[in-house]
Amino acid sequence: MVIEEKTISSDKIYTGKTISLKVDTVETINQGYQKREIVEHPGAVGILALNENNEIVLIKQFRKPIEKVIWEIPAGKLEPGETPKECAQRELKEETGYDASNLKLIHKFYTSAGFSNQKIYIYLATDITVGERNLNDDEDIEVHTISLEEAYNMVIQNEIEDAKTAIGILIARELI
Amino acid sequence: MVIEEKTISSDKIYTGKTISLKVDTVETINQGYQKREIVEHPGAVGILALNENNEIVLIKQFRKPIEKVIWEIPAGKLEPGETPKECAQRELKEETGYDASNLKLIHKFYTSAGFSNQKIYIYLATDITVGERNLNDDEDIEVHTISLEEAYNMVIQNEIEDAKTAIGILIARELI
Repeated sequence: MVIEEKTISSDKIYTGKTISLKVDTVETINQGYQKREIVEHPGAVGILALNENNEIVLIKQFRKPIEKVIWEIPAGKLEPGETPKECAQRELKEETGYDASNLKLIHKFYTSAGFSNQKIYIYLATDITVGERNLNDDEDIEVHTISLEEAYNMVIQNEIEDAKTAIGILIARELI
Repeated sequence: MVIEEKTISSDKIYTGKTISLKVDTVETINQGYQKREIVEHPGAVGILALNENNEIVLIKQFRKPIEKVIWEIPAGKLEPGETPKECAQRELKEETGYDASNLKLIHKFYTSAGFSNQKIYIYLATDITVGERNLNDDEDIEVHTISLEEAYNMVIQNEIEDAKTAIGILIARELI
Protein backbone atom coordinates (compact mmCIF):
# COMPACT_ATOMS: atom_id res chain seq x y z
CA MET A 1 0.00 0.00 0.00
CA VAL A 2 1.56 3.25 -1.16
CA ILE A 3 1.07 6.16 1.24
CA GLU A 4 -0.17 9.55 0.03
CA GLU A 5 1.87 12.60 0.98
CA LYS A 6 0.04 15.09 3.20
CA THR A 7 0.49 18.77 2.34
CA ILE A 8 1.83 20.80 5.27
CA SER A 9 2.06 24.13 3.44
CA SER A 10 1.96 25.51 -0.09
CA ASP A 11 3.82 28.53 -1.54
CA LYS A 12 2.58 30.14 -4.73
CA ILE A 13 5.66 31.17 -6.74
CA TYR A 14 4.23 32.29 -10.09
CA THR A 15 0.91 32.61 -11.90
CA GLY A 16 1.24 32.94 -15.66
CA LYS A 17 -0.62 32.80 -18.95
CA THR A 18 -0.39 29.03 -19.39
CA ILE A 19 1.23 27.63 -16.26
CA SER A 20 1.55 28.36 -12.56
CA LEU A 21 4.22 27.21 -10.14
CA LYS A 22 3.84 26.32 -6.46
CA VAL A 23 6.13 24.62 -3.98
CA ASP A 24 4.39 22.36 -1.47
CA THR A 25 5.93 21.06 1.73
CA VAL A 26 4.78 17.49 2.31
CA GLU A 27 5.13 14.88 5.01
CA THR A 28 6.87 11.79 3.63
CA ILE A 29 6.75 8.13 4.59
CA ASN A 30 9.67 8.41 7.03
CA GLN A 31 7.90 11.24 8.93
CA GLY A 32 10.28 13.74 7.35
CA TYR A 33 9.43 16.76 5.23
CA GLN A 34 10.19 17.40 1.59
CA LYS A 35 9.53 20.15 -0.93
CA ARG A 36 7.53 19.25 -4.05
CA GLU A 37 7.81 21.67 -7.00
CA ILE A 38 4.54 21.59 -8.93
CA VAL A 39 3.75 23.16 -12.29
CA GLU A 40 0.01 23.57 -12.73
CA HIS A 41 -1.40 23.40 -16.25
CA PRO A 42 -5.07 23.61 -17.37
CA GLY A 43 -4.78 20.41 -19.46
CA ALA A 44 -4.56 19.97 -23.19
CA VAL A 45 -5.78 17.91 -26.12
CA GLY A 46 -4.03 16.34 -29.10
CA ILE A 47 -5.90 15.31 -32.25
CA LEU A 48 -5.10 12.31 -34.45
CA ALA A 49 -7.04 13.37 -37.56
CA LEU A 50 -7.41 10.58 -40.08
CA ASN A 51 -8.66 11.10 -43.64
CA GLU A 52 -10.31 8.58 -46.00
CA ASN A 53 -6.89 7.65 -47.47
CA ASN A 54 -5.58 6.51 -44.08
CA GLU A 55 -3.41 9.61 -43.80
CA ILE A 56 -3.06 11.66 -40.65
CA VAL A 57 -2.50 15.39 -40.21
CA LEU A 58 0.90 16.28 -38.75
CA ILE A 59 2.21 19.77 -38.14
CA LYS A 60 5.66 21.31 -37.88
CA GLN A 61 6.09 24.03 -35.31
CA PHE A 62 8.94 25.83 -33.53
CA ARG A 63 8.96 25.17 -29.80
CA LYS A 64 10.84 27.76 -27.77
CA PRO A 65 11.54 25.58 -24.68
CA ILE A 66 13.58 23.17 -26.82
CA GLU A 67 14.69 25.72 -29.48
CA LYS A 68 13.68 23.29 -32.19
CA VAL A 69 11.11 22.66 -34.92
CA ILE A 70 9.39 19.34 -34.27
CA TRP A 71 6.66 17.14 -35.73
CA GLU A 72 3.46 17.06 -33.71
CA ILE A 73 -0.20 16.22 -33.99
CA PRO A 74 -2.43 19.33 -33.77
CA ALA A 75 -2.94 20.23 -30.11
CA GLY A 76 -3.73 22.99 -27.70
CA LYS A 77 -4.63 23.82 -24.16
CA LEU A 78 -8.10 23.83 -22.63
CA GLU A 79 -9.77 27.23 -22.36
CA PRO A 80 -11.84 27.97 -19.22
CA GLY A 81 -15.22 26.22 -19.35
CA GLU A 82 -14.33 24.19 -22.43
CA THR A 83 -14.67 20.40 -22.55
CA PRO A 84 -11.72 18.41 -23.96
CA LYS A 85 -13.89 17.45 -26.97
CA GLU A 86 -14.80 21.08 -27.74
CA CYS A 87 -11.14 21.98 -27.39
CA ALA A 88 -10.15 19.22 -29.84
CA GLN A 89 -12.67 20.48 -32.43
CA ARG A 90 -11.51 24.09 -32.02
CA GLU A 91 -7.76 23.44 -32.07
CA LEU A 92 -7.96 21.13 -35.08
CA LYS A 93 -9.81 23.84 -37.02
CA GLU A 94 -7.59 26.72 -35.86
CA GLU A 95 -4.28 25.04 -36.55
CA THR A 96 -5.04 23.00 -39.66
CA GLY A 97 -8.38 24.13 -41.16
CA TYR A 98 -9.91 20.68 -40.76
CA ASP A 99 -13.42 20.08 -39.43
CA ALA A 100 -14.14 16.68 -37.92
CA SER A 101 -17.67 15.19 -37.77
CA ASN A 102 -16.45 12.40 -35.54
CA LEU A 103 -14.25 12.77 -32.46
CA LYS A 104 -13.50 9.89 -30.14
CA LEU A 105 -11.33 9.94 -27.00
CA ILE A 106 -8.72 7.20 -27.40
CA HIS A 107 -6.27 7.91 -24.56
CA LYS A 108 -5.49 10.30 -21.74
CA PHE A 109 -2.22 10.63 -19.91
CA TYR A 110 -0.02 12.70 -17.61
CA THR A 111 3.00 14.13 -19.42
CA SER A 112 5.23 14.47 -16.38
CA ALA A 113 3.61 13.41 -13.13
CA GLY A 114 6.87 14.04 -11.23
CA PHE A 115 6.57 17.83 -11.46
CA SER A 116 3.35 18.73 -13.26
CA ASN A 117 -0.38 17.98 -13.25
CA GLN A 118 -0.58 18.43 -17.04
CA LYS A 119 -3.02 15.93 -18.55
CA ILE A 120 -3.44 15.41 -22.29
CA TYR A 121 -6.55 13.94 -23.92
CA ILE A 122 -5.99 12.31 -27.31
CA TYR A 123 -8.88 12.30 -29.77
CA LEU A 124 -9.20 10.30 -32.95
CA ALA A 125 -10.90 12.56 -35.51
CA THR A 126 -12.52 10.96 -38.56
CA ASP A 127 -14.87 12.16 -41.34
CA ILE A 128 -12.66 15.21 -41.73
CA THR A 129 -13.04 17.95 -44.35
CA VAL A 130 -10.61 20.76 -44.98
CA GLY A 131 -11.45 24.49 -44.97
CA GLU A 132 -9.89 27.74 -43.82
CA ARG A 133 -7.67 27.75 -40.78
CA ASN A 134 -7.58 30.43 -38.16
CA LEU A 135 -4.15 30.72 -36.52
CA ASN A 136 -3.42 32.93 -33.55
CA ASP A 137 -1.19 35.91 -34.53
CA ASP A 138 1.90 34.37 -33.03
CA GLU A 139 1.49 30.89 -34.53
CA ASP A 140 3.58 29.68 -37.46
CA ILE A 141 2.50 26.16 -38.34
CA GLU A 142 3.16 23.96 -41.38
CA VAL A 143 0.46 21.36 -42.12
CA HIS A 144 1.26 17.98 -43.70
CA THR A 145 -0.70 14.82 -44.41
CA ILE A 146 1.27 11.62 -43.99
CA SER A 147 0.12 8.00 -44.16
CA LEU A 148 -0.47 6.40 -40.78
CA GLU A 149 2.05 3.71 -41.72
CA GLU A 150 4.74 6.28 -42.57
CA ALA A 151 3.96 8.19 -39.35
CA TYR A 152 4.35 4.93 -37.43
CA ASN A 153 7.78 4.47 -39.04
CA MET A 154 8.68 8.02 -38.01
CA VAL A 155 7.90 7.07 -34.39
CA ILE A 156 9.93 3.85 -34.55
CA GLN A 157 12.86 5.68 -36.21
CA ASN A 158 12.44 8.37 -33.53
CA GLU A 159 12.06 11.19 -36.08
CA ILE A 160 9.01 11.97 -33.97
CA GLU A 161 10.17 13.09 -30.52
CA ASP A 162 6.96 14.43 -29.02
CA ALA A 163 5.14 12.41 -26.34
CA LYS A 164 1.51 13.04 -27.37
CA THR A 165 2.35 12.47 -31.04
CA ALA A 166 4.06 9.12 -30.41
CA ILE A 167 1.26 7.96 -28.11
CA GLY A 168 -1.49 9.10 -30.51
CA ILE A 169 0.06 7.33 -33.49
CA LEU A 170 0.94 4.11 -31.63
CA ILE A 171 -2.49 3.79 -30.02
CA ALA A 172 -4.46 4.75 -33.15
CA ARG A 173 -2.57 2.10 -35.12
CA GLU A 174 -3.65 -0.55 -32.59
CA LEU A 175 -7.30 0.54 -32.69
CA ILE A 176 -7.90 1.09 -36.40
CA MET B 1 9.68 26.91 -43.66
CA VAL B 2 8.88 27.45 -40.00
CA ILE B 3 10.55 30.51 -38.47
CA GLU B 4 12.42 30.29 -35.16
CA GLU B 5 11.50 32.76 -32.45
CA LYS B 6 14.30 35.13 -31.46
CA THR B 7 14.72 35.79 -27.73
CA ILE B 8 14.52 39.49 -26.87
CA SER B 9 14.88 39.09 -23.10
CA SER B 10 14.73 36.40 -20.44
CA ASP B 11 13.54 36.68 -16.83
CA LYS B 12 14.57 34.07 -14.29
CA ILE B 13 11.57 33.46 -11.99
CA TYR B 14 12.63 30.48 -9.87
CA THR B 15 15.53 28.06 -9.44
CA GLY B 16 14.64 24.91 -7.55
CA LYS B 17 15.77 21.41 -6.67
CA THR B 18 14.45 19.75 -9.83
CA ILE B 19 13.09 22.49 -12.07
CA SER B 20 13.66 26.15 -12.88
CA LEU B 21 11.26 28.64 -14.41
CA LYS B 22 12.02 31.50 -16.78
CA VAL B 23 9.85 33.74 -18.91
CA ASP B 24 11.32 34.71 -22.27
CA THR B 25 10.09 37.53 -24.46
CA VAL B 26 10.32 36.47 -28.10
CA GLU B 27 9.77 38.07 -31.47
CA THR B 28 7.04 36.19 -33.36
CA ILE B 29 6.33 35.71 -37.06
CA ASN B 30 4.07 38.80 -37.28
CA GLN B 31 6.87 41.00 -35.83
CA GLY B 32 4.99 41.13 -32.54
CA TYR B 33 6.24 40.08 -29.12
CA GLN B 34 5.04 37.26 -26.91
CA LYS B 35 5.96 35.79 -23.53
CA ARG B 36 7.06 32.16 -23.43
CA GLU B 37 6.92 30.45 -20.02
CA ILE B 38 9.64 27.82 -19.87
CA VAL B 39 10.21 25.13 -17.24
CA GLU B 40 13.80 23.88 -17.36
CA HIS B 41 14.45 20.29 -16.32
CA PRO B 42 17.77 18.36 -16.34
CA GLY B 43 16.26 15.45 -18.33
CA ALA B 44 15.27 12.01 -17.14
CA VAL B 45 15.34 8.33 -17.99
CA GLY B 46 12.72 5.56 -17.88
CA ILE B 47 13.64 1.89 -17.84
CA LEU B 48 11.68 -0.93 -19.47
CA ALA B 49 13.25 -3.86 -17.61
CA LEU B 50 12.39 -7.22 -19.15
CA ASN B 51 13.07 -10.55 -17.44
CA GLU B 52 13.53 -13.99 -19.02
CA ASN B 53 9.78 -14.72 -18.65
CA ASN B 54 8.84 -11.72 -20.82
CA GLU B 55 7.68 -9.81 -17.77
CA ILE B 56 8.46 -6.15 -17.14
CA VAL B 57 9.04 -4.28 -13.91
CA LEU B 58 6.31 -1.75 -13.09
CA ILE B 59 6.12 0.40 -9.98
CA LYS B 60 3.34 2.11 -8.09
CA GLN B 61 4.13 5.48 -6.64
CA PHE B 62 2.24 8.48 -5.23
CA ARG B 63 2.70 11.60 -7.36
CA LYS B 64 1.99 14.83 -5.52
CA PRO B 65 1.29 17.02 -8.60
CA ILE B 66 -1.67 14.81 -9.54
CA GLU B 67 -2.52 13.63 -5.97
CA LYS B 68 -2.69 10.07 -7.22
CA VAL B 69 -0.92 6.70 -7.12
CA ILE B 70 -0.07 5.64 -10.68
CA TRP B 71 1.63 2.82 -12.54
CA GLU B 72 5.01 3.74 -13.99
CA ILE B 73 8.18 2.20 -15.28
CA PRO B 74 11.18 2.89 -12.99
CA ALA B 75 12.55 6.35 -13.78
CA GLY B 76 14.50 9.26 -12.44
CA LYS B 77 16.21 12.48 -13.30
CA LEU B 78 19.77 12.91 -14.54
CA GLU B 79 22.32 13.92 -11.90
CA PRO B 80 25.03 16.42 -12.89
CA GLY B 81 27.73 14.77 -15.02
CA GLU B 82 25.79 11.55 -15.41
CA THR B 83 25.05 10.00 -18.83
CA PRO B 84 21.48 8.81 -19.50
CA LYS B 85 22.72 5.21 -19.51
CA GLU B 86 24.44 5.57 -16.11
CA CYS B 87 21.29 7.17 -14.79
CA ALA B 88 19.17 4.27 -16.09
CA GLN B 89 21.42 1.73 -14.35
CA ARG B 90 21.39 3.68 -11.07
CA GLU B 91 17.65 4.41 -10.96
CA LEU B 92 16.67 0.85 -11.83
CA LYS B 93 18.81 -0.43 -8.96
CA GLU B 94 17.71 2.24 -6.45
CA GLU B 95 13.99 1.92 -7.09
CA THR B 96 13.60 -1.80 -7.76
CA GLY B 97 16.79 -3.63 -6.76
CA TYR B 98 17.37 -4.90 -10.28
CA ASP B 99 20.78 -4.88 -11.99
CA ALA B 100 20.80 -4.94 -15.78
CA SER B 101 23.75 -6.28 -17.81
CA ASN B 102 22.24 -4.95 -20.99
CA LEU B 103 20.82 -1.47 -21.52
CA LYS B 104 19.74 -0.20 -24.91
CA LEU B 105 18.27 3.21 -25.75
CA ILE B 106 14.98 2.59 -27.58
CA HIS B 107 13.36 6.03 -27.67
CA LYS B 108 13.78 9.62 -26.54
CA PHE B 109 11.10 12.27 -26.42
CA TYR B 110 10.00 15.65 -25.11
CA THR B 111 7.22 15.36 -22.54
CA SER B 112 5.73 18.81 -23.07
CA ALA B 113 7.55 20.90 -25.66
CA GLY B 114 5.00 23.72 -25.29
CA PHE B 115 6.24 24.76 -21.85
CA SER B 116 9.24 22.59 -20.88
CA ASN B 117 12.55 21.33 -22.23
CA GLN B 118 12.19 18.03 -20.32
CA LYS B 119 13.53 15.16 -22.38
CA ILE B 120 13.12 11.50 -21.38
CA TYR B 121 15.37 8.68 -22.58
CA ILE B 122 13.79 5.22 -22.56
CA TYR B 123 16.10 2.23 -22.08
CA LEU B 124 15.29 -1.41 -22.62
CA ALA B 125 17.05 -3.37 -19.85
CA THR B 126 17.60 -7.09 -20.34
CA ASP B 127 19.64 -9.79 -18.56
CA ILE B 128 18.32 -8.47 -15.27
CA THR B 129 18.96 -9.92 -11.81
CA VAL B 130 17.30 -8.85 -8.59
CA GLY B 131 19.13 -7.75 -5.44
CA GLU B 132 18.73 -5.14 -2.70
CA ARG B 133 17.17 -1.82 -3.53
CA ASN B 134 18.26 1.51 -2.18
CA LEU B 135 15.41 3.99 -1.97
CA ASN B 136 15.86 7.64 -1.08
CA ASP B 137 14.37 8.43 2.37
CA ASP B 138 11.31 10.06 0.93
CA GLU B 139 10.48 7.37 -1.63
CA ASP B 140 7.65 4.88 -1.13
CA ILE B 141 7.55 2.55 -4.11
CA GLU B 142 5.80 -0.77 -4.73
CA VAL B 143 7.51 -3.07 -7.23
CA HIS B 144 5.57 -5.47 -9.49
CA THR B 145 6.42 -7.76 -12.37
CA ILE B 146 3.76 -8.00 -15.06
CA SER B 147 3.84 -9.75 -18.43
CA LEU B 148 4.57 -7.43 -21.35
CA GLU B 149 1.28 -8.54 -22.92
CA GLU B 150 -0.71 -7.67 -19.78
CA ALA B 151 1.12 -4.32 -19.54
CA TYR B 152 0.22 -3.66 -23.18
CA ASN B 153 -3.45 -4.32 -22.33
CA MET B 154 -3.15 -1.90 -19.40
CA VAL B 155 -2.02 0.77 -21.87
CA ILE B 156 -4.84 0.05 -24.32
CA GLN B 157 -7.41 0.00 -21.48
CA ASN B 158 -5.81 3.25 -20.23
CA GLU B 159 -5.15 1.86 -16.75
CA ILE B 160 -1.67 3.19 -17.47
CA GLU B 161 -1.84 6.99 -17.66
CA ASP B 162 1.83 7.94 -17.63
CA ALA B 163 3.47 9.13 -20.87
CA LYS B 164 6.89 7.45 -20.52
CA THR B 165 5.29 4.18 -19.39
CA ALA B 166 2.87 4.01 -22.34
CA ILE B 167 5.63 4.91 -24.82
CA GLY B 168 8.10 2.43 -23.32
CA ILE B 169 5.63 -0.45 -23.40
CA LEU B 170 4.24 0.29 -26.88
CA ILE B 171 7.70 0.71 -28.44
CA ALA B 172 9.27 -2.28 -26.66
CA ARG B 173 6.41 -4.47 -27.89
CA GLU B 174 7.16 -3.44 -31.47
CA LEU B 175 10.89 -4.12 -31.12
CA ILE B 176 10.93 -7.41 -29.21
